[in-house]
Amino acid sequence: MIIIAGPCSIEGKNFIQIGLAVKAAGATHLRGGVFKPRSSPFRWSGLHEEALPLLEEARVVVGLPLVVEAMSPQQIELLYPYVDVFQVGARNSTNTELLKEFGRQDKPVLYKRGMAQTIEEFVMGTDFILNEGNTNVIMCERGIRTFESYTRNTLDINCIPSVKELCSIPIIADPSHGTGRRSLVVPVACAAIAAGADGLMIEVHSDPDRALTDGSQSITPEIFASLVRRVKAIKEVL
Amino acid sequence: MIIIAGPCSIEGKNFIQIGLAVKAAGATHLRGGVFKPRSSPFRWSGLHEEALPLLEEARVVVGLPLVVEAMSPQQIELLYPYVDVFQVGARNSTNTELLKEFGRQDKPVLYKRGMAQTIEEFVMGTDFILNEGNTNVIMCERGIRTFESYTRNTLDINCIPSVKELCSIPIIADPSHGTGRRSLVVPVACAAIAAGADGLMIEVHSDPDRALTDGSQSITPEIFASLVRRVKAIKEVL
Amino acid sequence: MIIIAGPCSIEGKNFIQIGLAVKAAGATHLRGGVFKPRSSPFRWSGLHEEALPLLEEARVVVGLPLVVEAMSPQQIELLYPYVDVFQVGARNSTNTELLKEFGRQDKPVLYKRGMAQTIEEFVMGTDFILNEGNTNVIMCERGIRTFESYTRNTLDINCIPSVKELCSIPIIADPSHGTGRRSLVVPVACAAIAAGADGLMIEVHSDPDRALTDGSQSITPEIFASLVRRVKAIKEVL
Amino acid sequence: MIIIAGPCSIEGKNFIQIGLAVKAAGATHLRGGVFKPRSSPFRWSGLHEEALPLLEEARVVVGLPLVVEAMSPQQIELLYPYVDVFQVGARNSTNTELLKEFGRQDKPVLYKRGMAQTIEEFVMGTDFILNEGNTNVIMCERGIRTFESYTRNTLDINCIPSVKELCSIPIIADPSHGTGRRSLVVPVACAAIAAGADGLMIEVHSDPDRALTDGSQSITPEIFASLVRRVKAIKEVL
Repeated sequence: MIIIAGPCSIEGKNFIQIGLAVKAAGATHLRGGVFKPRSSPFRWSGLHEEALPLLEEARVVVGLPLVVEAMSPQQIELLYPYVDVFQVGARNSTNTELLKEFGRQDKPVLYKRGMAQTIEEFVMGTDFILNEGNTNVIMCERGIRTFESYTRNTLDINCIPSVKELCSIPIIADPSHGTGRRSLVVPVACAAIAAGADGLMIEVHSDPDRALTDGSQSITPEIFASLVRRVKAIKEVL
Repeated sequence: MIIIAGPCSIEGKNFIQIGLAVKAAGATHLRGGVFKPRSSPFRWSGLHEEALPLLEEARVVVGLPLVVEAMSPQQIELLYPYVDVFQVGARNSTNTELLKEFGRQDKPVLYKRGMAQTIEEFVMGTDFILNEGNTNVIMCERGIRTFESYTRNTLDINCIPSVKELCSIPIIADPSHGTGRRSLVVPVACAAIAAGADGLMIEVHSDPDRALTDGSQSITPEIFASLVRRVKAIKEVL
Repeated sequence: MIIIAGPCSIEGKNFIQIGLAVKAAGATHLRGGVFKPRSSPFRWSGLHEEALPLLEEARVVVGLPLVVEAMSPQQIELLYPYVDVFQVGARNSTNTELLKEFGRQDKPVLYKRGMAQTIEEFVMGTDFILNEGNTNVIMCERGIRTFESYTRNTLDINCIPSVKELCSIPIIADPSHGTGRRSLVVPVACAAIAAGADGLMIEVHSDPDRALTDGSQSITPEIFASLVRRVKAIKEVL
Repeated sequence: MIIIAGPCSIEGKNFIQIGLAVKAAGATHLRGGVFKPRSSPFRWSGLHEEALPLLEEARVVVGLPLVVEAMSPQQIELLYPYVDVFQVGARNSTNTELLKEFGRQDKPVLYKRGMAQTIEEFVMGTDFILNEGNTNVIMCERGIRTFESYTRNTLDINCIPSVKELCSIPIIADPSHGTGRRSLVVPVACAAIAAGADGLMIEVHSDPDRALTDGSQSITPEIFASLVRRVKAIKEVL
């Protein structure tokens, strides 16, 4: 089971601390945003180049493979030496030129579903990567946009077994973005694994209320540890 | 764990056979449509009064409490002697006059979420029943309408833990309507239980390909039996 | 061109004043809610029986045909002597038993589209009325539920010409509910007429900021008068 | 009034013929796809470099400014000498790195709304272009994704006056993508202008049934000519 965890954005030294905590709790990969896609250019969008030494340090000190989003060929080039898995975010899920660029990389790609992408389009989207030669793709259901406003997005649980019957690419779920509410992350993570997901991506922060981005959907390392125990127990029964 | 199972519509004698099969597999309640809500008056809408002797027979022979939908005060009156739990279907979820009528009954009410009802409206909707004096309500997440077309509806898994934090009414899930595809019913049923649902409602038919309504989302008694085993195992771990 | 205007709810004597104002501005029908469908039973839902003398007075003093919503056979019976056109609201658009009841009336029925009803289901929904013998039906596009939150609903402008090609029933638009914002009512009313709508339903209040329901989408009689001038000019060019 | 018309994709010599026809009918700009974004890499995606001589020829022979979509910095560079207005398509509406690249160009940018982008996000999206120094932006409402399936997208007519009250950037509408059905293009174009749109983008093809892309939503030059007459008449009355 793939378990990617870490802060939404890398904010500073606490990245290492969070990394060690999620590793201890059972994470298989460490995530951290360097360039954060935002809806406005006037919002803080990550540490950019300043995050690179922290990625380097995390690699050595934490020792988990790193998952980082890239939004352009320039960002891919800059991040390449530090990153183990590239992430395509929901906002770029239909940016086919970027998908093709990821298809020319020799590192795995985590491909997140777009907010208005149908399941069949999501599956076809992977072809832009695969067709360029990179067959190391992981899909990620992270919620779609619906009329519902209590939650930030609607995690489409149907997507997990649907992708399983449409292709053989692994699929994980991101209940942090899929709900947008800290209190819903654990039960929806359990649901995703029970539906057959191959793993999870979870936003974890040492002090969620002070996180610079996505704090309302981030959980503490302690809650994350209990989440891992629960999903492992479910995985075992299936 | 509440497990309501049975055919979408009561079609004839096979209702008894299906009832016995779902009981043997672990169902706690038997469902069967007498008046089927349809999008057109020119479609078959159930056996109506002709189904009543079959309800009577099922009660005696199968011995499970019966869950049947009613869409008007007249139908409530007609079904009252035969039914243990009344169902409000998704098409009537905002029919507040009907909800109030159910509030004046002395039998439990299964209240299904409307296709465009927000989680908070769904919770508020129960007040129309409760406020008339009937506090025996079970909520049911059965999928919402989204842009997704691979599945008939999008089962909103977030709804389960959201309802749990908003009120103390039990909530079950209906993965048959929530997916509209037979192949997705088992994994999504497992997901719902893992997310904390108090039970399930599952369409089961002895010969799904020949079912008069909802065949494409109905499963056989054999598949249902394996579904029950899986969800019970998950419930135990939680 | 059908132009139905008036307050969301009948609140008291100002109903007559609003009625006279909308008549002077060009309205062909006067609307006013007697029983207001609400999402919670704890919200004010109209004057109920107390509104009947006001309907009576409006009939005599204003002299426009009255359009009033009914949500049950009991309400139909109660309102029958006072009402010229019965309205089925969006919350009851799939309440087929109520639609059939309207089909047995000898007065016209204004049938509003449901928030999650497809265009084809909306057209089929009229069959429940027509099939009982009442062929005097007017359809009304009033906005659907989407992810958009700046507006209360998304008025589906495509619905107008789609209905025109699917059936021969007149269709009007309700830009008050379709937008939920006072400032958008006039341009969207113009759009609906330009798209081929046979008329409009507009919420008008003498003091919108103090309206008991739907104030944020109600316009003053003065704005309504300018709206009528604009839509008439557009209708003429088409 | 901006009226951009032309084929979805440039397919060959008929591009010139269509260009002359739309010019004669009143178009102010000629559109034509060189690189067509598709949901699968296995679908035809335009003539690419082979279209450049046709752009050149159209410029001279037709004499209208050319509007062409670009999806990457490479495509911008390649198209730069031939193009008068760059288009950002719906699939790249949240590709902020591309938006910034357009912000560094000295040519106008037509920015199409994303299929799941809220009105407020759509307005904020323009900041990625404006903030880099390019203030020559035109917004374009082209329909959002909803549950409706009779139409390809749901043209959000509310968006037009909403954008007008949120910013001072011109906004046009694309009823071709906004409906996906040829028969709906004229009425919805009229609606958009009546709602206050500053112009239109219309797919026109000399033989829509044989168009290589988007034929079902393309209209003939004759229908386009009548569309222009109708929207001009409406514009005049407003």
